[in-house]
Amino acid sequence: MLKLYDLAGAEPDRRFSPYCWRARMALAHKGLEVETIPWRFTEKETLAPTKQGRVPVLVDGDRWVNDSWAIANYLEDTYADRPSLFGGPGGRALARFFNYWGDAVVVAGIFPLVVFDIWRHTAEKDRDYFRKSREERLGTTLEAAQAQRETRLPAFRDSLLPLRLVLRNQTFLGGDAPLYPDYIVFGAFQWARCISEFKLLAADDPVHAWRARMLELYGGLAGRAKGYLP
Amino acid sequence: MLKLYDLAGAEPDRRFSPYCWRARMALAHKGLEVETIPWRFTEKETLAPTKQGRVPVLVDGDRWVNDSWAIANYLEDTYADRPSLFGGPGGRALARFFNYWGDAVVVAGIFPLVVFDIWRHTAEKDRDYFRKSREERLGTTLEAAQAQRETRLPAFRDSLLPLRLVLRNQTFLGGDAPLYPDYIVFGAFQWARCISEFKLLAADDPVHAWRARMLELYGGLAGRAKGYLP
Repeated sequence: MLKLYDLAGAEPDRRFSPYCWRARMALAHKGLEVETIPWRFTEKETLAPTKQGRVPVLVDGDRWVNDSWAIANYLEDTYADRPSLFGGPGGRALARFFNYWGDAVVVAGIFPLVVFDIWRHTAEKDRDYFRKSREERLGTTLEAAQAQRETRLPAFRDSLLPLRLVLRNQTFLGGDAPLYPDYIVFGAFQWARCISEFKLLAADDPVHAWRARMLELYGGLAGRAKGYLP
Repeated sequence: MLKLYDLAGAEPDRRFSPYCWRARMALAHKGLEVETIPWRFTEKETLAPTKQGRVPVLVDGDRWVNDSWAIANYLEDTYADRPSLFGGPGGRALARFFNYWGDAVVVAGIFPLVVFDIWRHTAEKDRDYFRKSREERLGTTLEAAQAQRETRLPAFRDSLLPLRLVLRNQTFLGGDAPLYPDYIVFGAFQWARCISEFKLLAADDPVHAWRARMLELYGGLAGRAKGYLP
């Protein structure tokens, strides 16, 4: 069976990496069973075959694939007879933009809003590593960054405008059914939901309704995962 | 032959609508000849068959189609045997996001940087209309908005980060060849180039090199158009 190294918190069943969620949703889209293996930030040596230290890492027989974008493309090419993640060659090329928009706008926008909540849920052995590396990135303490989240929230919500306008016109970014760009963007919201009670979205936002649809896909794969109500 | 009502300035051959450029590039992508008809902001009655007052408007026999997104979809469906604008059904669904990102980030980001330059190039009879409607939108004068453009430029360039990262990895948003999302985003840069000397992009920006490629497509359709050096 396929195996996926999946970031976990202090509790092994709290899985909170936005990039691992991209991979898990892509695997479900392809109808592929996967065994997820809880992994912590500091377990770099476990991933040695990939010559890098981050998850998700997919193991398919003797093949190790790291990086969520590479995993999506590997699945699309290797399991080509199963439902497409991209909906054709144009869709695959265009999906790359979502990969970067998802990082630069959605993941980066959410990060300071929940960063102390992430730390609270990390495994004991990961806490110093997480605090040190993230405080360097933020230029302040985790607590100070998160303390400003109410002030920062409106700008984050504004940054979602293109997504919001699409979802006023169609059910998913992929149209009537989700494609990999839906999983890219959703991964960030699922990350937040798994470790934070903070309300990122207004209840009447079309993005809120889309997130609810995403949580229900594949028998509630994401919705049943340990976390907070979105 | 197909006809396209195309926004023109004081000089009939200065064509500077970002949305008309989307349509012109889409027509060229499909290999369709088109007669463009210069149109000014205040010539609302000319477009009466479309029950609205904005260009682009495509006339194909007795069919009038308005709105650049509707035109792209009309061309894709009506001229289905010609090169696809979307690269498949997934590409078409995902393209809608670019339509909104192009508006909310690229067109809206460029607008205050060149708005007085636009006014300087509009037809005499359009000038009062343009000034009044745009100053209401800006909440200030055209001159005052544009005077802050050096201050605003870094934030605009930052907002292009997802585009920049894609173009470090592939030639066009559409991959090895352009798709309609390339025309969506390019339309905004062509709009600016046609009416302003302002340097929107740093010379070493991958977006700059991509724009140069776009200007050369279809025998230099956009690059030969009246405007300033980009």
